Amino acid sequence: MMRETDHHFMRRALELAKLRKGLTHPNPTVGCVIVKDGKIIAEGYHEKVGMPHAEAVALEKAGTQAEGSTLYVTLEPCTHYGRTPPCTDAIIRAKVKRVVIATLDPNPLVSGRGVQKLRDAGIDVCVGVLEDEARELNEDFFTYITQKRPYITLKLAQSIDGRIATKHGESQWITNQESRTFAHRLRAQATAVLVGINTVLRDDPSLTVRHIPWESQPIRVVLDPNLRIPITSKLVREKTAKTLIITASENREKMKILEDEGIKVLLAPAEEGKLILREVLRELYFMEIMHLLVEGGAQTITSFIKEDLYDRLFIFLAPILIGEGIGIGDIGTSKLLDAKRHMLKSIYRFGDDVGLEYKKL
Amino acid sequence: MMRETDHHFMRRALELAKLRKGLTHPNPTVGCVIVKDGKIIAEGYHEKVGMPHAEAVALEKAGTQAEGSTLYVTLEPCTHYGRTPPCTDAIIRAKVKRVVIATLDPNPLVSGRGVQKLRDAGIDVCVGVLEDEARELNEDFFTYITQKRPYITLKLAQSIDGRIATKHGESQWITNQESRTFAHRLRAQATAVLVGINTVLRDDPSLTVRHIPWESQPIRVVLDPNLRIPITSKLVREKTAKTLIITASENREKMKILEDEGIKVLLAPAEEGKLILREVLRELYFMEIMHLLVEGGAQTITSFIKEDLYDRLFIFLAPILIGEGIGIGDIGTSKLLDAKRHMLKSIYRFGDDVGLEYKKL
Repeated sequence: MMRETDHHFMRRALELAKLRKGLTHPNPTVGCVIVKDGKIIAEGYHEKVGMPHAEAVALEKAGTQAEGSTLYVTLEPCTHYGRTPPCTDAIIRAKVKRVVIATLDPNPLVSGRGVQKLRDAGIDVCVGVLEDEARELNEDFFTYITQKRPYITLKLAQSIDGRIATKHGESQWITNQESRTFAHRLRAQATAVLVGINTVLRDDPSLTVRHIPWESQPIRVVLDPNLRIPITSKLVREKTAKTLIITASENREKMKILEDEGIKVLLAPAEEGKLILREVLRELYFMEIMHLLVEGGAQTITSFIKEDLYDRLFIFLAPILIGEGIGIGDIGTSKLLDAKRHMLKSIYRFGDDVGLEYKKL
Repeated sequence: MMRETDHHFMRRALELAKLRKGLTHPNPTVGCVIVKDGKIIAEGYHEKVGMPHAEAVALEKAGTQAEGSTLYVTLEPCTHYGRTPPCTDAIIRAKVKRVVIATLDPNPLVSGRGVQKLRDAGIDVCVGVLEDEARELNEDFFTYITQKRPYITLKLAQSIDGRIATKHGESQWITNQESRTFAHRLRAQATAVLVGINTVLRDDPSLTVRHIPWESQPIRVVLDPNLRIPITSKLVREKTAKTLIITASENREKMKILEDEGIKVLLAPAEEGKLILREVLRELYFMEIMHLLVEGGAQTITSFIKEDLYDRLFIFLAPILIGEGIGIGDIGTSKLLDAKRHMLKSIYRFGDDVGLEYKKL
């Protein structure tokens, strides 16, 4: 049964989880508080993959005080040995009296097992406190687990009239510095950042997180069906982040050169000269890429949209009109009713630029 | 000299002016308060063209109490006989002691004359209190007077990716009901609403102000170079608002039919089958159309943008992606630096639609 103070303590657990958002890939971010006599006696969050889970951290801090306490956790405790021992065992061992959970594990194979194990041990368990917020916070993780592919954010920097570049392909820089700094926050939230080979050939981007403090760099992924990436490109030369090239070419010589540079090259099937996105995403899923940010260019973005392979759209809108130019191409809309529909999640203002966050419906 | 309370009373005068925004065409909207011993003793605003000016209304209410008072007015009082007698005479006659003016008359031929006449009569005059707000409020009027053309707002209802219609021309309805209701407010602010003939042929719009309470209807203007408008179209059949057709065709017979329906037909020069916009605007200026709302379609909007003939852009952004479709066409952007630039004035949220108001830089 839910109690009046449950929301209050779960909100604190969510706050703790938020502190590590984007830093726990491919794990979800989780927060935990332990409460006794109406007071928080210990807090914890999952720092990063390989480190103890939030419950383990909080229980460790609480020590013997945990006996008879209520434990709040934003995600159902695990019952399995993975990179760390099962949290349910630790909770039972610490003689916690009541466990409040925001949301169940999204994996249908284990969902509800943690709850069952705790109840079997005589612990009072309550599920569903601030569930929507908790699911939202780990939306990428939930999609990754249930869809067996990365959660996909498409990022577009465009003019008011939806142009990503001029007719001559010029796109640097459509948006302002403030927008571009925010775009680095999007990168920071991602496990990997993906671009098509044309973007590499034209813009030679670094694709690293800059301008904001951050602990780790997302993997840089290039869709390069014919293995055209120049050895001199920043993605090859700059070692600040890992680079993964996905290709359909069996040019062993070029592969060897790239691998000698520390770059991973993966083969994937292609159709009409284009890599099959579902196959690419399958590879990325197996590589534990939970959240993929697709940055362009127009052709790559268009392919992801056309195949309905995205969850979120982030548009940076510069206060300019370009007119004739390059925008999203054919995505198979023949009637207005067929148009891909979205929910508007957030509106940001970056000076005279606007940032729009949409979720796919 | 400015006094501490001047802002306070001028703000009230601006509030009064705002009440009639969009209802005084081709006059500006003006508010006035008369203050004596620190208290407002009379207020007035200009109701509509042909009715007394704000100062005259307030002075009439104040009667003999106006003697020794301070009069606040959002625009320099007129010195000429137009549709009503000069306000400066009425102020002098009422023995007002001090006059505070937000902004001078924009017409260079008369600007400052009102101030001079009042000062010559021994009245203490202060100019520039809340000047920016006052200019902003009558921005359309200021543009109309100084540029000798209507103030032009372009309205676009588009998908996130800047499509005004699908590739088959389908555009009804891209945006939601809430956006469309707001669009009626834009119509209400305009003296005239303009569309190209293709929009009439495809959508058969009414172009009237609906869904919101409003006192008068803007004139409906159609750019119809070859006089193709169907006699059966709503713009011809529905008499709720006036219709003006601008054409380069000398089809006297069709003109006669239209004129018998109460529709005004104006001849204007064309080039390569398209009406010359500057000539069209000149006609509209002479017809005292102060604020023109251009509603489409793509070709008409593109022409106005290409020729730099607009002041404001209002974009309604629906949460859909169309991809290949109809958007703004060639506006002469060859480099990103040439792109038309704007200032973002306001952001609105209409459910999942977004409204963006830009001013041209």
